[in-house]
Amino acid sequence: MAVYTTVDDTTLHAFLAGYDVGDVLSFAGIAEGVENSNYLLRTTKANYILTLYEKRVDADDLPFFIELMTHLSDAGMNCPVPLAARNGRILHDIAGRHCALFSFLDGTFSRFPNRAKCRALGASLAELHLKAQGVSRRRANALGPASWTTLLTSIGADADILGTGMYDTITGRLQQILQHWPDDLPHGIIHADLFPNNVLFVGDNLTGLIDFYFACEDILAYDVGICLNSWCFEADGSFNMTKSRALMQGYESVRPLTDKEKSAIPVLAAGSAMRFFLTRLYDWIHTPKDALVSPKDPMEYWAILRFHQSVSGITAYGIDLRPPAGDAS
Amino acid sequence: MAVYTTVDDTTLHAFLAGYDVGDVLSFAGIAEGVENSNYLLRTTKANYILTLYEKRVDADDLPFFIELMTHLSDAGMNCPVPLAARNGRILHDIAGRHCALFSFLDGTFSRFPNRAKCRALGASLAELHLKAQGVSRRRANALGPASWTTLLTSIGADADILGTGMYDTITGRLQQILQHWPDDLPHGIIHADLFPNNVLFVGDNLTGLIDFYFACEDILAYDVGICLNSWCFEADGSFNMTKSRALMQGYESVRPLTDKEKSAIPVLAAGSAMRFFLTRLYDWIHTPKDALVSPKDPMEYWAILRFHQSVSGITAYGIDLRPPAGDAS
Repeated sequence: MAVYTTVDDTTLHAFLAGYDVGDVLSFAGIAEGVENSNYLLRTTKANYILTLYEKRVDADDLPFFIELMTHLSDAGMNCPVPLAARNGRILHDIAGRHCALFSFLDGTFSRFPNRAKCRALGASLAELHLKAQGVSRRRANALGPASWTTLLTSIGADADILGTGMYDTITGRLQQILQHWPDDLPHGIIHADLFPNNVLFVGDNLTGLIDFYFACEDILAYDVGICLNSWCFEADGSFNMTKSRALMQGYESVRPLTDKEKSAIPVLAAGSAMRFFLTRLYDWIHTPKDALVSPKDPMEYWAILRFHQSVSGITAYGIDLRPPAGDAS
Repeated sequence: MAVYTTVDDTTLHAFLAGYDVGDVLSFAGIAEGVENSNYLLRTTKANYILTLYEKRVDADDLPFFIELMTHLSDAGMNCPVPLAARNGRILHDIAGRHCALFSFLDGTFSRFPNRAKCRALGASLAELHLKAQGVSRRRANALGPASWTTLLTSIGADADILGTGMYDTITGRLQQILQHWPDDLPHGIIHADLFPNNVLFVGDNLTGLIDFYFACEDILAYDVGICLNSWCFEADGSFNMTKSRALMQGYESVRPLTDKEKSAIPVLAAGSAMRFFLTRLYDWIHTPKDALVSPKDPMEYWAILRFHQSVSGITAYGIDLRPPAGDAS
């Protein structure tokens, strides 16, 4: 949560001179997104978000992200619309950073979304999976299963700050996940980071999906696993099956899952838990004690991982292998 | 620039239930103010700022700040209006912090304001000095001249990171300022931090004074010195007398300065430069190298200090001791 790059008034006005966005009323850096600098711009016409891409985002990936958001918004999804300047360009350079101007989406996020929101999220996730099929560019998942062993090795014995023997325990659980990792499930573009803070609502109406900067090509149902982990566990660590069922029903109302995909949910969700556990653990170890931004507790995701590795079957998620009953059954 | 305290949706809705502000459309932490957490709230009615007071602000001072802003906005000044809940209360507690809701002011700040903006700033500063006279509460200046020797002592030999012998040089210049510090000039409530980033404009129209959390009782003309330092020096360190004259003319168009006040401008401005030099130097030494927020370079204010101690008279500021010539002269 930070604004890393400052945009002064001279720079802003020079940049906006290339756009038809009216006159500036206010301009404030907002504390959203850990990867980029974001500014909320109000003009006499509308509200906008100006995003400056910081160094953690690879400039070569920007055309993919822009194409994805343009494609999804053209297809009617509620996501930020990348706006072209009068010269037709979307990506620009200001203050030493690549940047782009986006439409502003109304809505706020829920830290612990209710069932109705989980259902809406599921439906939007499936819609994203279907509508992103038309995107021509591709981006590999830099944080996919192939990276987890390397990540764990780089953490090494430091993992034992979580408890004696943790490095070995994590290694064992990671091997278990990788041995069962499916290789024949439908692929496509996934959001890969659709946590509640990246989904906006007004009331229970989903008004926006944001922060596409982890989007990549991977197993579609893996994205479902990421959402189960971030939407369906309560503050006390318990798994809320009612929310899980709502999320899955929402998803399947748009894109029904195959039995193979359903059967893989436990290992995909465990893999997602492993991915966030490992990156959080890495940040936990490498963030200076006096940093303004506190790292997130990796143990939250360790508990989630253990849940998925302990379930006896997919009914634990409120789903089963029978196809949804039709009206005529 | 940071949001230190997180306000989740449940907390926000519970808090706003006490107000008549319509339904929430968006809510984002903004990266303004180094002392507090600020959120920009958009509702179906208007835009607001929610401020959470962090530990650097003394809770005992809050009634003074609230009274000051209420008084100034009641008197027609463009400053944030503290809003009362239905129960009449302005100060509340959420997320473990004292907080208050304010009207949102349009406008953006200029890093290097032009002459017209300097004039408008001068006039608004004088207006603030006059209108704040009706405020009943008082707050001493914790960063006034009485504190500078203590601050320099606490920095001690570390000052020499700026160059060998700097501690002694600073001590000498500080003594010079304190020996000439005036004790018979008009006092009142001053803003004490009216840098360009705390003054909003739409075009050249001044639309807002913000961030009153250094406001206190002190010499009124000392506030003029603070503004000369922060508004009238260019990026290359040169003093822009045209802007200084505009600022002073703006001020005197509302509140003419006495000859005694004018004569004290060089030492008051030097004192102001010393105050910001010392606090910046302290932060420079005490900010961890890997902190997200870079400390500001103290040497900028050292150069300003040297300027004021080298001027031969107040004509350097574009002013003189004669009263402004009337139409009939």
